[in-house]
Amino acid sequence: MPTYRLLIEYEGTTFSGWQIQRNGPSIQGELEKALAVVLRERVRVVGSGRTDAGVHARGQVAHFRSSQTIDPERLQGSLNGLLPPSIAIRAVTLAAEDFHARYSARWRRYHYYVTTVPCALERHFRWYLRPAPDFARMNRAAQALLGMHDFTTFCRAQSATRNRICTVYLARWVADSRPGDWHFEIIADRFLHGMVRAIVGTLVEIGRGQREETALTELLMRRDRRLAGPAAPPHGLILEAVGYPEDPWPIP
Amino acid sequence: MPTYRLLIEYEGTTFSGWQIQRNGPSIQGELEKALAVVLRERVRVVGSGRTDAGVHARGQVAHFRSSQTIDPERLQGSLNGLLPPSIAIRAVTLAAEDFHARYSARWRRYHYYVTTVPCALERHFRWYLRPAPDFARMNRAAQALLGMHDFTTFCRAQSATRNRICTVYLARWVADSRPGDWHFEIIADRFLHGMVRAIVGTLVEIGRGQREETALTELLMRRDRRLAGPAAPPHGLILEAVGYPEDPWPIP
Repeated sequence: MPTYRLLIEYEGTTFSGWQIQRNGPSIQGELEKALAVVLRERVRVVGSGRTDAGVHARGQVAHFRSSQTIDPERLQGSLNGLLPPSIAIRAVTLAAEDFHARYSARWRRYHYYVTTVPCALERHFRWYLRPAPDFARMNRAAQALLGMHDFTTFCRAQSATRNRICTVYLARWVADSRPGDWHFEIIADRFLHGMVRAIVGTLVEIGRGQREETALTELLMRRDRRLAGPAAPPHGLILEAVGYPEDPWPIP
Repeated sequence: MPTYRLLIEYEGTTFSGWQIQRNGPSIQGELEKALAVVLRERVRVVGSGRTDAGVHARGQVAHFRSSQTIDPERLQGSLNGLLPPSIAIRAVTLAAEDFHARYSARWRRYHYYVTTVPCALERHFRWYLRPAPDFARMNRAAQALLGMHDFTTFCRAQSATRNRICTVYLARWVADSRPGDWHFEIIADRFLHGMVRAIVGTLVEIGRGQREETALTELLMRRDRRLAGPAAPPHGLILEAVGYPEDPWPIP
């Protein structure tokens, strides 16, 4: 059956998250509603992973299957005409029949954006940190995340996920072009529920000297969410890209 | 009398523009209201220039004078606590007594942001261009703007400004890091009412082949607003920075 792959950008501010839920609008729900209008059939949209309420995406990937043959570019135009302006379809492509947005994905890249100067234009996309943490210290501390670890300490306690092993390929703080603006970049094969926000919340405590610079190593070993810092707020987090074996490198 | 200089960022989406007006909230009005609370006196806030309804600023500069001696950092904190979140005071400094945000300014830098791919996160800050224009052609065409010219053709017809001579120091299209995203950067000693938006609207017509690549030279000579293209929408325009003789170079 033809499998369509969607590249999706969304501002999560007003959504209850990616996944269809009873308590509010979801990105998945809006997509399925728009597709039902275009295709005149109900299809299930499968994302590379869930994002929480208030979390954004610049490069979410999803797929759906339909017996209909549709021109991808026309489908993109129709969907963008139907979707709320906070959701944009960046691209539609015909994928291999066995393509699966979640199971075929090899890695995910998240950025968490912060600023140490009050801002207005990016206020929905940056966590304002006052007092400012020591970014060099946070950068050194983040290196403990690299490699394969059990991330239970940074996984939401009520998560049903059994396998807590993730492999982190990159974890670093990057200075943005504007003085005072930074982002935390993290790439891993998979992420657990609330993982990036728990890591960022803990790193900021390290950056403010409230924890030892080497704290992450022990925290990982203890496998106890109560020991990590409070989750950073959702609005600074953006799912930037998802990588698949068939894609050209690097992913924009 | 002590003169305070403000560096201001704002999202113009919900404002009637910089200047106090009868028909809606203005950035100047919000600032004067907040300052009246902090200083317990009415002061007049003078900006480097007006921005239209819906236009944003990352680096607007303004000044006010007050007989009171206030700690600049405390003033910044108080103002940010009182202002709506769409206005942020990036810095407050004590300026020379004769500093004037408008008359002391030597240049202004505007960016006009566009995209050729549907987007969600920056939808309030980029004009979506469909069909996409030829950016190389627009870049060549823009070079006609450099230097000293009478910009009447690109000045709103009802403007009361008599002197229409501006000196443009830089005018170019720059590719942003994301494929399909571009911005038009223009630096001049001064700008007329609606000037950047009229220029961008005309350049896009050139970029789509609706006008000759060399059209700007003749348009400038004709001094007739009716000959230029329609104004580009306000939401893509950001006042990025204002330059003063006493500032260190380069301005961030």
